[in-house]
Amino acid sequence: MDETVEMKVLESDNTISVASTFPGHQEEVQDRDYHFLSLAVEEAYNGVNCGHGGPFGAVVVLNDGIVVSCHNMVLEYTDPTAHAEVTAVREACKKLGRLELSDCEMYASCEPCPMCFGAIHLARIKRLVYGAQAEAAIAIGFDDFIADVIRGTAQYQKANLEIKRADGVSLNCNPVSCCVKCP
Amino acid sequence: MDETVEMKVLESDNTISVASTFPGHQEEVQDRDYHFLSLAVEEAYNGVNCGHGGPFGAVVVLNDGIVVSCHNMVLEYTDPTAHAEVTAVREACKKLGRLELSDCEMYASCEPCPMCFGAIHLARIKRLVYGAQAEAAIAIGFDDFIADVIRGTAQYQKANLEIKRADGVSLNCNPVSCCVKCP
Repeated sequence: MDETVEMKVLESDNTISVASTFPGHQEEVQDRDYHFLSLAVEEAYNGVNCGHGGPFGAVVVLNDGIVVSCHNMVLEYTDPTAHAEVTAVREACKKLGRLELSDCEMYASCEPCPMCFGAIHLARIKRLVYGAQAEAAIAIGFDDFIADVIRGTAQYQKANLEIKRADGVSLNCNPVSCCVKCP
Repeated sequence: MDETVEMKVLESDNTISVASTFPGHQEEVQDRDYHFLSLAVEEAYNGVNCGHGGPFGAVVVLNDGIVVSCHNMVLEYTDPTAHAEVTAVREACKKLGRLELSDCEMYASCEPCPMCFGAIHLARIKRLVYGAQAEAAIAIGFDDFIADVIRGTAQYQKANLEIKRADGVSLNCNPVSCCVKCP
C-alpha cells in the first residue's frame, strides 16, 4: 500500500520489465521502512531497559509521522494483553480519537502473535512491516503460539492488510540480558 | 477441567459403563455453567444499555467465585481491543495481581474472536464456556473474522484449554436495539 506506482514497459526485444515511477523510488521506500523499523527495534530495547516487559516494540505511522511508539508493558501493567502491538493500537486510537487506523502503518520489531494480529486487523491498519521472525522470540523462551498467525491460517488469508517481513533487520536479542518471559 | 471424576464400571454383562462420582454430578456442573453463563449474557445487555460497546459479556470465575464481570468497552474507551474477554483478562489479572489465570475459568456470552482467544490463551485460562456462536454476531453486522478461531485453526488445536459451547443459551440480540458495530 505504499505509494509505488509500477509500470510495465515493453522492451525492444519484446520482454517486459517493470519500472517504478521515478528512479530510486524502491530504494526510498526501503530506506523509509528501515528507518521506522529501526525505531521499533530501539523501542524494544528501551522497554527491556525499563523493565516494562519483553523485548518487543511497535510504532504506528500516519503519512510520514509517528503517531505512537510503544513497547511491551506486560510486567509494568500486570497485563498479559499489553504486548507492544496491542499497546500501540490502543494508544494510537486514544491519541487520534477514533476506532480505526485504516490510514496508518505499523512497524513491529517482531512478527505479531495471534492476539496482536487480531488487534491489528480489528483496527484496520493498512500495512504491517515487521522485523524478526517469530523463531527469534521462541528461541529465547516465548510461547510458540506466536508463530501461528502469519503463516497459513485463515486469519492471515482473510486480512486486508499488506504485510512485509524486513529481512536483514533483527532484534538481536541477548538471551542473557533480556530473558523476561511474559506469558 | 471441572471436578468430575469418572469411573469405569464393569457391568455383569461385561459391558463397560461410566459413572460419575455421585448421582446428579453432571446436572450440578450443568447448573453451575448455566448460572455463570447467564451472568455473562446479562453483562452483555448491561454494556449495551450503558452505550459502552457491542453486546458481549465475559465473567472470570475462580473456584466458585466471580473475580470480574466485564462487558465490551470499545466505544467507552475508544479502544478496538477492549472486547469483553480482553477486558476481563486485564481486569482479572489486575485484581489478582498476577499475569496468569491458570486456575480460572472464563464464561463468555459469545464465541471469542481470534484476538480474544489469543488473550485467553496467553493468560492460561483453564476452561472456557461460551454461549452464542459467532454466526449470531456476524448476523448483526460484526466482522466474520470472529468465526475463525475455534474451528480448525492451529491456535485452537494447540491450546491447552477446555472449551465448551453451551447450546441452548443464546444472546438473543435484537438487531434493532443493539446494532452498535465496533470494528
